[in-house]
Amino acid sequence: MIRIGIAGYGNLARGVEAAVAGAEDLELAAVFTRRPPAGVHVRTAGVGVYSFAEMTDFTGRVDVMINCGGSASDLPHTTPGIAASFHVVDSYDNHSSIPEHFRRTDDAARAGGKLALISAGWDPGLFSLSRLYMNAVLPDGRDATFWGRGVSQGHSDAVRRIGGVLDARQYTVPIAEALEAVRRGDAPELTARQKHRRECYVVADEGADRARIEREIVTMPAYFADCDTTVTFITAEEMRREHSAMPHGGCVIRTGRTGSGTKQRMEFSLSLESNPEFTGSVLAACARAVFRLAGEGRTGCLTVLDVPPAYFLAGEGEIFRFL
Amino acid sequence: MIRIGIAGYGNLARGVEAAVAGAEDLELAAVFTRRPPAGVHVRTAGVGVYSFAEMTDFTGRVDVMINCGGSASDLPHTTPGIAASFHVVDSYDNHSSIPEHFRRTDDAARAGGKLALISAGWDPGLFSLSRLYMNAVLPDGRDATFWGRGVSQGHSDAVRRIGGVLDARQYTVPIAEALEAVRRGDAPELTARQKHRRECYVVADEGADRARIEREIVTMPAYFADCDTTVTFITAEEMRREHSAMPHGGCVIRTGRTGSGTKQRMEFSLSLESNPEFTGSVLAACARAVFRLAGEGRTGCLTVLDVPPAYFLAGEGEIFRFL
Repeated sequence: MIRIGIAGYGNLARGVEAAVAGAEDLELAAVFTRRPPAGVHVRTAGVGVYSFAEMTDFTGRVDVMINCGGSASDLPHTTPGIAASFHVVDSYDNHSSIPEHFRRTDDAARAGGKLALISAGWDPGLFSLSRLYMNAVLPDGRDATFWGRGVSQGHSDAVRRIGGVLDARQYTVPIAEALEAVRRGDAPELTARQKHRRECYVVADEGADRARIEREIVTMPAYFADCDTTVTFITAEEMRREHSAMPHGGCVIRTGRTGSGTKQRMEFSLSLESNPEFTGSVLAACARAVFRLAGEGRTGCLTVLDVPPAYFLAGEGEIFRFL
Repeated sequence: MIRIGIAGYGNLARGVEAAVAGAEDLELAAVFTRRPPAGVHVRTAGVGVYSFAEMTDFTGRVDVMINCGGSASDLPHTTPGIAASFHVVDSYDNHSSIPEHFRRTDDAARAGGKLALISAGWDPGLFSLSRLYMNAVLPDGRDATFWGRGVSQGHSDAVRRIGGVLDARQYTVPIAEALEAVRRGDAPELTARQKHRRECYVVADEGADRARIEREIVTMPAYFADCDTTVTFITAEEMRREHSAMPHGGCVIRTGRTGSGTKQRMEFSLSLESNPEFTGSVLAACARAVFRLAGEGRTGCLTVLDVPPAYFLAGEGEIFRFL
């Protein structure tokens, strides 16, 4: 059994925990938290909760640590920190900063003789794999990624920071006409507004100026100004009843040409009832691959693009059934 | 530049040739044929055509051989033969016999200190990769593969062997209701008849008994008896005009559950105007990966499931753009 540690215990960590429970070759060894450990209750029977400061006591008792912190302020520091003492997997998803995160994690892991795999999940992660395979096979082409319909945590958080907003949920919605144009292979470069629209569901304070809240949302630079955005005010009860799930999904489409202009199309798509449970399942498979590669003496930092696919799969010797 | 040799020069080989011409790091070095070389005209300027018997003269002048023979009677013998002297890639697609083909090729390649990659293309190949990644991430689930709408060479050949048939083309067509049931995740195990139907277009000899031909087709065991099959008689001119392309495609769908019953779905699909050109593009990318892995000292036999994805991609150091 591969002994898994979980660092941070939020929605993603509970997804990892469920995936570990469902895997024949993984077992949860310990959970680490920044909160007071006594107040954190994990679902797996018999698994202890410890403070981050106690983590290094677990070298030799945890084979791979899965770091479930957030990309904004947590993972850039904690993943290199953990990589000094443990093999580690994370889901760092700030695409433009991945090269820097890779270098820092690579340095730390090499110094500690450990192996790290960063930026796993579905985007980056399975979507990255799709883009790479598609580009390798169809070099003369163009790809596009669509997200949704699904909840974006970052955009939901941005709305919650507006004065008078008690709670908010933002859905990213791909625009069907753009999707079809890309599938036909006749789409030019599409703008953000042409590809996606945004739906916000907002619980406002009783006395709040709803017109002002809506204006602040739809004009917010980087988050909403570049897309058509609708704002719907709902009650806290409606939020609980209709928007507590975390569905998501999306697709990567590449259209290209071979020979003297023959059209070819490839597509990979996901439809997820729970984004954190699915992402957690990807991280669990990555922990298995890291354990195996580390057993061969690999150290430093990897991404899913570096891992032989068979390393992700539980069991041995039945690989031919996929061929 | 990686110097590519092509063994056998039919439709697939012309697809490989086009892919090599479009790749920045591949060049065609030589073509080998069983026919009289003087009668084979390749499209790439300055490339010579040689007999199979001359192949061993090219050690040191060809880096990777792409074996474009057929799976039925050619590849089981020629791939191990070539692997004794060259790194080699093939598209062996007789799924049930892949383990045996793997072992024979592995033995030959190890003995010669060479590296082979067998069963590349899209099924087996990219579809195998999809099934493996999907199973690794969603162990609690079920997957299904649909093929088409597209031309099946094997089924077309089977019809051509019937007395009175001058030419034939068989399209495999996925049944939309079955596809939707699988996507919804509520399909039981589907029978062949529930998943696909078959359309045959037949040019018959003038005096032939069409009713007999149709009966022989739809009752043919293994090929047609298990599916609903339609037979349409057309003229040779209609065949040339409307059925000379070789489109194909299909999809792999896996539905599964995470946590306490959350539904998740993954899908990979292809829509191809030319099956041989697309398959040729996959083989060219595999030749690149084989060259690189061989450069690291790897020998024996591999499939795409063993290859780190980044090895398929031309160029270096820009891997982060896919993440």
